Amino acid sequence: MDFFSLFVMDFIQQLQSPTLAFLIGGMIIAALGSELVIPESICTIIVFMLLTKIGLTGGIAIRNSNLTEMVLPMIFAVIVGIIVVFVARYTLANLPKVKVVDAIATGGLFGAVSGSTMAAGLTVLEEQKIPYEAWAGALYPFMDIPALVTAIVVANIYLNKKKQKEAAHDHESFSKQPVAAGDYSDQQDYPSSRQEYLSLQQPADNRVKIWPIIEESLRGPALSAMLLGLALGIFTQPETVYKSFYDPLFRGLLSILMLVMGMEAWSRVGELRKVAQWYVVYSVLAPFVHGLIAFGLGMVAHYATGFSWGGVVVLAVIASSSSDISGPPTLRAGIPSANPSAYIGASTAIGTPVAIGLCIPFFLGLAQALSGG
Amino acid sequence: MDFFSLFVMDFIQQLQSPTLAFLIGGMIIAALGSELVIPESICTIIVFMLLTKIGLTGGIAIRNSNLTEMVLPMIFAVIVGIIVVFVARYTLANLPKVKVVDAIATGGLFGAVSGSTMAAGLTVLEEQKIPYEAWAGALYPFMDIPALVTAIVVANIYLNKKKQKEAAHDHESFSKQPVAAGDYSDQQDYPSSRQEYLSLQQPADNRVKIWPIIEESLRGPALSAMLLGLALGIFTQPETVYKSFYDPLFRGLLSILMLVMGMEAWSRVGELRKVAQWYVVYSVLAPFVHGLIAFGLGMVAHYATGFSWGGVVVLAVIASSSSDISGPPTLRAGIPSANPSAYIGASTAIGTPVAIGLCIPFFLGLAQALSGG
Amino acid sequence: MDFFSLFVMDFIQQLQSPTLAFLIGGMIIAALGSELVIPESICTIIVFMLLTKIGLTGGIAIRNSNLTEMVLPMIFAVIVGIIVVFVARYTLANLPKVKVVDAIATGGLFGAVSGSTMAAGLTVLEEQKIPYEAWAGALYPFMDIPALVTAIVVANIYLNKKKQKEAAHDHESFSKQPVAAGDYSDQQDYPSSRQEYLSLQQPADNRVKIWPIIEESLRGPALSAMLLGLALGIFTQPETVYKSFYDPLFRGLLSILMLVMGMEAWSRVGELRKVAQWYVVYSVLAPFVHGLIAFGLGMVAHYATGFSWGGVVVLAVIASSSSDISGPPTLRAGIPSANPSAYIGASTAIGTPVAIGLCIPFFLGLAQALSGG
Repeated sequence: MDFFSLFVMDFIQQLQSPTLAFLIGGMIIAALGSELVIPESICTIIVFMLLTKIGLTGGIAIRNSNLTEMVLPMIFAVIVGIIVVFVARYTLANLPKVKVVDAIATGGLFGAVSGSTMAAGLTVLEEQKIPYEAWAGALYPFMDIPALVTAIVVANIYLNKKKQKEAAHDHESFSKQPVAAGDYSDQQDYPSSRQEYLSLQQPADNRVKIWPIIEESLRGPALSAMLLGLALGIFTQPETVYKSFYDPLFRGLLSILMLVMGMEAWSRVGELRKVAQWYVVYSVLAPFVHGLIAFGLGMVAHYATGFSWGGVVVLAVIASSSSDISGPPTLRAGIPSANPSAYIGASTAIGTPVAIGLCIPFFLGLAQALSGG
Repeated sequence: MDFFSLFVMDFIQQLQSPTLAFLIGGMIIAALGSELVIPESICTIIVFMLLTKIGLTGGIAIRNSNLTEMVLPMIFAVIVGIIVVFVARYTLANLPKVKVVDAIATGGLFGAVSGSTMAAGLTVLEEQKIPYEAWAGALYPFMDIPALVTAIVVANIYLNKKKQKEAAHDHESFSKQPVAAGDYSDQQDYPSSRQEYLSLQQPADNRVKIWPIIEESLRGPALSAMLLGLALGIFTQPETVYKSFYDPLFRGLLSILMLVMGMEAWSRVGELRKVAQWYVVYSVLAPFVHGLIAFGLGMVAHYATGFSWGGVVVLAVIASSSSDISGPPTLRAGIPSANPSAYIGASTAIGTPVAIGLCIPFFLGLAQALSGG
Repeated sequence: MDFFSLFVMDFIQQLQSPTLAFLIGGMIIAALGSELVIPESICTIIVFMLLTKIGLTGGIAIRNSNLTEMVLPMIFAVIVGIIVVFVARYTLANLPKVKVVDAIATGGLFGAVSGSTMAAGLTVLEEQKIPYEAWAGALYPFMDIPALVTAIVVANIYLNKKKQKEAAHDHESFSKQPVAAGDYSDQQDYPSSRQEYLSLQQPADNRVKIWPIIEESLRGPALSAMLLGLALGIFTQPETVYKSFYDPLFRGLLSILMLVMGMEAWSRVGELRKVAQWYVVYSVLAPFVHGLIAFGLGMVAHYATGFSWGGVVVLAVIASSSSDISGPPTLRAGIPSANPSAYIGASTAIGTPVAIGLCIPFFLGLAQALSGG
């Protein structure tokens, strides 16, 4: 059991890394009822600085590197983003008491990427001194946007089909009264009183426009900051400010954010009780399943084009993460009939801590065992 | 007068240290009517970072050090925290126009510890290159919690006794009408319209539960942050984040907080005019008296177990400080009938600037004169 | 064309410096509709830290330097501050559809100094490794306050004269009814419903008191922070906190502020549409004209007392900047009848980006071409 003992030792050691320790610390002090509060404005600026730094790193790396080696990992990132939604569509959506649109939205959120989780992954890799491509952070949007677009498109195709079926059904069964309670709630699917979010849908000809969803994603604060950093890294010379500010403060700011995410995860656990218990099962398993798909594809890139083992871990961590900042507003706009308690609760309360606290050490240990073996 | 001249020179030099200079600067610009405002959220995160750093320092030190040498200073910290309340009970409380519960609450606040004052003390010690035990900051809760618990217990014992006496008195003097005005106001003692704070008391059998007070203290944002840092320092390996973030930013963040405390002190001076003038006398003298008691006990530890002179100064500074963040809410909950203007005004407007601006240089000079002489 | 090609190459290179790149990046992402928001409280603390740092730099420099060499640049700063207002009075104010008080207020704002623009100028100088006097930042108030005072005095003299003329005119033309619409709006000059701002004026004897305007300027958050830094730099020993905190964080914090100013500039462009188009012309040209006046005077100081070329650029940049923080409230108080959309829109939307993005590279290139040629 050499592989296994290596893996377990590594796992335990990583829980002591500042990044994971602050996450667990946040959960513990929240569980103990601490009144500690990190102001909202501080969290906002921390997320901005982390994602700008990741963007700058990627941009500077892209400026100095061979673009062709990025192609395969980028394609794989897109593929994983799309697959994740279909995994939710054909597993979670078919479970009892789970609404199909809620399941698709949850899949979209778990396919989308969390900047904080990615930052944690990159930091743990550095703490363990495992090299990875500096442009790996730039894979973020290549998985994030396809996942959100796919979720919104799939959800709307489903809703349109259902509507047509119901219209046909209504004609047929005009006399079949009364409707069963379960049937009724399924037909409704939270008929959107949230008309304000409907802007992303095109109600007239029942087709979904893809471009507005992409635009909405790109405009979100997290992706804006990252793409700004990327552009500045590629086209300007931000090295002085990168070395004196964004890079040295990165780990410390991340530790504060991890603490906040730990406290947040604990406080959101309650929300999950309101939705079907299957979300809990999905939220625990999905990060591993998604990460393993990405890890497998990453290994293909490793053997095909020399993608580093560190890069494979980054791809797996991005896949196992679920979006906490940019995803929710885009999904609310794109699938207004889905229940936010379901997908946000599943992601924040379980998905994110599992991805950071369990998947990062797991994939890192896996890579070390495979590469060292 | 070798001792005295050494002391005066040292005192003047320390006023030029950034920590004290920013405090005095804050008082001066507030006095000149500056419209400078440091946002509340910035102060919150600064306090979090300072106390997390102090906790981390302590935790890392405890992990690597001999625990037995901490025992005596810890016991002395507890003793000082308790004595301080009784000093207020038998001096301030007996002065004219001072209500007994207000005096006990003020004693509790002056016994409790200010993280900012402690941070200032540690920084001035480092600026003067005087060594102290790295775990000295961990003495904080050992003085803070006993002081608050003692104050709340003593206040409630007093209030219960008075109630019983009044009940007996009412029986005896049923016919003695009318009641004198002074007597009346004494009987009332702000009969708590603040019923929401009564949770910490057990009204049924007139006994005070101690555990909820301790729990309330530990949950406050200041102690939470410090204990989190302490736990992370002991059980995990936060060295990277400590060295790249919490430690280098410490002094700078403290300088901003000192500025805020200087401005705050100036703006609170007005509140003191509403309460008895004896609070002013107490607030000026108490930090020195409490600090000297702690300094004396610290010297015992110095000669008994080799506690460093720097550590003696830390113990004295902790004792001379009065709580500004964690103390007030705990006291409002524990002694709802005490007047917050009295104890918060006394602490913020006079106690804290005296402790930082006068007591830190005083005890540091004392230690240098004694150790050098 | 050696001079010109040197200048163009330098200009393009400087647009890649982090400071200017973040400004342009902010304008671009705002134009693309990014939802990125930097919280207000973060901007406040960044401005505080930048100006405290500039003050500390100046104060430490003044403590260690020959004061006599500061005299000439200081006098020139005062002269430029006054001239700028008269430039606006005799150019912008005489253009069609421009109200005289609005023009004077705009002149005051363009004469006043922007701490952020100055910070950007100092940083670009450092990025280009061009030496300048460390006390150059301390020239700020010597241009800022005279400009604001002059604007308020000139505006009030104008308003008083007009009122006397109107009173005389009213007597003469008592029967000439009705008044033309254009005439009417001119007579009104936004009759101040903003009575709360009138405190700075002395309505009784129609003379303007200068001291309250100076006092108001000095109390503003930007100048308070800078003067506090200056005083601490001169009278105390803030070197430790300067080197560990204010100095290393300067460039990074500036990059965030530049981003915010870029976004802000874009969002304010709309306001300019409401006022006369001449404001646009003035806002583009004025930074260059003011900067050239200061550059010329700076060259006099260069040849007379050895003021460095870097210092000449700082003086020109200060002159080309227009106030964004301290200026507007002082002007609203001092000239309540002027329209803030006019002067704030002109300054924030055009003046500041022109000063930072065009004037800094322009004057730096000019100095390099002149000194190198």
